[in-house]
Order: sequence, then C-alpha cells, then structure tokens
Amino acid sequence: MSCDIGIDIGGTNIKLGLVDAQGSVVARRRLDTRAGLGPKRAMVRLGAAIEELRALKRVRSVGVGIAGLVDHEHGVVRVPPNLPGWHGFGVKRALEDMTGLPVWCSNDANAVCLGEWLHGAGRGCDNLFSLTLGTGCGGGAIVNGRLLLGANHAAGELGHTVIQADGPECRCGGKGCLERYVGAKYVIQRAKQAARRQARRIRVHRNQMSFLGDAAHDRLTMLFELAGPRLSKLDARLLGIAARKGDRVANEVVEETGYYLGLGIVNVVALLDPERVVIGGGVSGLGRPLLRSVRKTVLSRGQIFTGRKLDIVFGELGNDAGIVGAARLGRWLRRRV
Amino acid sequence: MSCDIGIDIGGTNIKLGLVDAQGSVVARRRLDTRAGLGPKRAMVRLGAAIEELRALKRVRSVGVGIAGLVDHEHGVVRVPPNLPGWHGFGVKRALEDMTGLPVWCSNDANAVCLGEWLHGAGRGCDNLFSLTLGTGCGGGAIVNGRLLLGANHAAGELGHTVIQADGPECRCGGKGCLERYVGAKYVIQRAKQAARRQARRIRVHRNQMSFLGDAAHDRLTMLFELAGPRLSKLDARLLGIAARKGDRVANEVVEETGYYLGLGIVNVVALLDPERVVIGGGVSGLGRPLLRSVRKTVLSRGQIFTGRKLDIVFGELGNDAGIVGAARLGRWLRRRV
Repeated sequence: MSCDIGIDIGGTNIKLGLVDAQGSVVARRRLDTRAGLGPKRAMVRLGAAIEELRALKRVRSVGVGIAGLVDHEHGVVRVPPNLPGWHGFGVKRALEDMTGLPVWCSNDANAVCLGEWLHGAGRGCDNLFSLTLGTGCGGGAIVNGRLLLGANHAAGELGHTVIQADGPECRCGGKGCLERYVGAKYVIQRAKQAARRQARRIRVHRNQMSFLGDAAHDRLTMLFELAGPRLSKLDARLLGIAARKGDRVANEVVEETGYYLGLGIVNVVALLDPERVVIGGGVSGLGRPLLRSVRKTVLSRGQIFTGRKLDIVFGELGNDAGIVGAARLGRWLRRRV
Repeated sequence: MSCDIGIDIGGTNIKLGLVDAQGSVVARRRLDTRAGLGPKRAMVRLGAAIEELRALKRVRSVGVGIAGLVDHEHGVVRVPPNLPGWHGFGVKRALEDMTGLPVWCSNDANAVCLGEWLHGAGRGCDNLFSLTLGTGCGGGAIVNGRLLLGANHAAGELGHTVIQADGPECRCGGKGCLERYVGAKYVIQRAKQAARRQARRIRVHRNQMSFLGDAAHDRLTMLFELAGPRLSKLDARLLGIAARKGDRVANEVVEETGYYLGLGIVNVVALLDPERVVIGGGVSGLGRPLLRSVRKTVLSRGQIFTGRKLDIVFGELGNDAGIVGAARLGRWLRRRV
C-alpha cells in the first residue's frame, strides 16, 4: 500500500512523516530548521530525510505546510515571518527536482485544517474552521466542502483580526490583533505578571497579619512550584496543569485567554458560519478550562448565534495534524481545492 | 425574452422588479411592508404586484431576499430582527402556491452580493465580499466562485463582528460590534454630537474674543444649514455633501466612520482574503471621503496585506442590487450555490 509524505516546516523544527491512506503516521523524522542558514541548506537535509522514508514504503506524493504565506500554484513562499531568507523560495520546484515526486505546498495552518478535516476532529463537516494556537495564531477554513484559499492564498489569518481597536501594538503594524492576546508569549507574560502580583499582595498581607498575630489565608499560586521561583519554565502546559488543579491565578489567566480567543471565534462564526471550530496547537494545552471560557464567550453573544449548529472542540491529531494534512495536499490542491 | 422577478423584503419597504438576462430592471413596484401586520397579509399584496409584473413579460422564476436569517433549502424566515411575526414563515411555499412559479429565498445581504457579483462592481471575481451599510450592516461573500452560505445559512454577518472588546453594548447582546459604530443611527448620532460640541465651543470662543475685541476664526459647521437648526433632517447623504464641500466637522465624522468600517474590513480580509470588497447601502452616500478613510485604515495594517490583490470599491447597482441579485437566486441556489 502506498503512502504520501507530509512535511511541516516551522521556524524551529521541520517535521516529516510517512502517512498512509487512513491518515496514520507510520514513520517520522524531525530536523532543526536552522532558519538563519536559508532554505537551500535546509532542502539538502530534508532531501536526505525524505530518502530515508522512501526506503520504507512506496511514496506517491509529497505535501509541504510552511509557516508563512504560500503561493499554492507555484509552491513559492512569501513573507514568512519566522523563516528569514525564505521569501520567494520555490519549495515545490526544489523538492520536485530533488525527489522526482509531485510536490504540493500550502500554508501550515491550511495543512492542519485539511488534516483535522479528513482524519481528525473535523470529519464530516462541510463548513469548518481550524485554528492553531502557538507562537502565532493561524487558521484555516473548509467552506462548502473545499479548502478556502482566498484570492491571495492568504485566507484564515485569524491572528491578525482586530478584537480591540485601540489595543496594544502588534508586530504586523496593526493594533489590538487577536495574536497580541492569545499568542503563547503574551499568555505566559500575563500569567507571570499575575503570579508576581499575587505574591506581592500576599507578602504585604502576611506582614500586616503577623503584626496582628494572624496567618494569611490566601495561598500562593502553585505556578512558582511548577515553573521555578523565577517562573522561567512556565509554558502553556504547566499553566494548564495548575488551572486544572484549581489554582486561582492560573484559572484567571486561562479564563481571560479564553475570553479573548472567544471574541476571535465570534468573528469567525459571524463571517463564515462554520458548523465546527477545531482548536489545536501548543496553547490548547491549557485544556478544558480554556474551552469552557471560549464557549461561554461565544454563547454570550446570544442573539445572533441562537439555535445554530455550532461545536467548539479540541483537535484530535495533536502535533501530527500538520504532517497528516500536508500529506493530503496533493489530492485536494489538484482538485483546485 | 423571459425575465425573472426579484423581490427585496425589508422592514419598511418591499421592492420588486422584473429583471432581464442582462441584469437590468425593466419594470418595478414598491409596497409598504407593514411588518406589524405579519407575513400573510403582505403576501396577498405581494402576489398582486407579481401578477402585474407577469402581465408584462414571461417570467421564469421568483427570487426573494429577506432581511433576516433565511433557511435557503426550505425558504423559511428565521430570527428577522426587523420583521416581527415573520419568524418561521415559509415564504417559498406561500409564493409558490400563489404563483405556480419556482421560488428561491435567501438573506437580503446575500442577494445583494449575488447582484453585484453577476451584474455590478464584483464582476469577474472568484472571491468577493459585499457589505450593505444601512440601519444594520450586512454582508455576503463569494468564495471559490460560489455564494458562501455557511452551515446555518448565516454567513456574512459582518455587523456583529467585534472590533472593540470593551465597546458599547449592541442590540445583539454583544459588545463593541461593528454595527454599533457604522450603523446609520450611530453615525448620525455621532455627527449631531460633534456638530453641537463645535457650536458650543464657538459660542464660548466668540464670547472670549469679543471681550478681547477680536473675531472668532472657527466657522460653524454647515450641518446646521443643511439639516436644520436642530439637525433633524440629518442623514448620511447630507453628511456626505457637507464632507465633500470641505466641512471640518462632517469630515471628522466620516473619517471616523471609515476607520471603524476599515477595521471590520480588515477582519474580513484577514479571514476570507477576497480580491474585491464592494460597499453599498444608504451609508455609502457618505461618498469618496468614506472610501478614502476605509482604504487608509486597511492599508495601515501594513505587513499582512502587503502586495495583495485587493480592491475596495462602491457598488454599482445602488438600491437595485437586492432586486437584481434576488432574481438570480434560482440559478445559483439550484446549483447548490
């Protein structure tokens, strides 16, 4: 039985896998991107990894999801914020020359969307939105049973939708973009601030109490225990663990993140009216408390969403979504998507 | 040559017209909706008007755009904010029984989108967004060369996308919705406030100047001249006239409206990546200054829209867009859109 190779090129890692017809990853490899060295040297190492996988099974096609805008027709990368030096590089052509296999390229969030749609949490939906919460906040959509590409192959850029007109500046040049509220860096930043604020408050409180001969009744957040006294190990996973264990500070931060993410999803639902929204990526490690807060926010916009068919769920493929979806690009882009 | 009948049912008026294959309205009628009397009595009068039009030309089909959510498959109205008593009414069935013609129904903003796409400012685009600025702010989209309906026939609800998380309350139960900033009522409200503020400032200033023996140099806004001393006649058209004549207060209000509308369009462009955005409806009477401000706002989100194929233009069909688009529903909904 023949397989396809799916490749997920991010700013830090390149992940690739041999994906069978059922969407299972039967073998995988991982490389450092070394983005600073440019695309050509990465292609050489990637070519070798592809050869290793081809030795295991017969391979029909190669699909590549890339962090940045991608011209689907020509397989050329454009404006990749986390891949300096890759702007204008023809991934399709380079890999086709090297492997002799047909190669298809798209934005990484679109690949994730395709993966969850065909083999994950989005199965059976004709209208789906999938979002990937990590450093940035990308999105992809299935509309009328086809992948939404847009006129410039740039649809689904959820991270740079505005949710607060006069909000803080974003790296895109705009203000109040969703990414500025739910991007991993900003969530962790808010959690650190909240933890330190609480620690300060407790210290002051304890001093007053000892003066009065009483004990402070507010418990210090467990984030210090989990992530070290300087919170240097704090990430979405640890924050999620603390929230699930009932830590008040962690829960507040997660709830706030869910509120902002919920507003972004309100905009998606108002414009695209999907029947399912699938949330994936590192920040989804915040777990059920995040989902609860997102759903609460979306439902609070009562009137316009009343009685709709609308589910908001976590992805099922986890970190493999990008690989699995990329492997299916050949089939779906050939149909002109 | 046979024609189709297009019907545009709003909260105040029902407009209908005989539309030929080129998208020209060759005859038209207008009725009061009398929304309070419910749909059945409106259907009787509508039936009579359809008969009048059928006497003029051979009619193939009837299409209806309705202000509210519409179940396209069954032609049933749902949650129509401006048509109390119409919830659950089967427009398709009622008109088919009455006329014996095939009848197709959709949301009015979707009909406008179809009209501008086939016969107006959106011709030739595979990815288009059309928005109708009036009392509310509706939208419709063409995606991959097909009308975007969504899982609940509710796609394109631009008016209730969020642009300011902590903004003023909207009638939908949300906060900071786009409609709360660019709906006709709110634009006129802001214009009145700005005019009165300026009048007050000038009065105070003149008193000080006469004390100093000098004349005030700030000119009173011409809005009072155009719309009466209590501004009671003020509407989008008059505001637009004042802005084009260089009135400072009018220009500030129009610019602000364009800024907010621009943020709404930023969200549309980020998610759907259309190659053209078409603006229609009463508030588009604000004219070129509005368009300038919208474009400036969208372009200011520099990085993510750089080098994109993206036009923002006014509609070409004006008030006829709804009729013309509705007349084409038969063809496009039959293809399952």
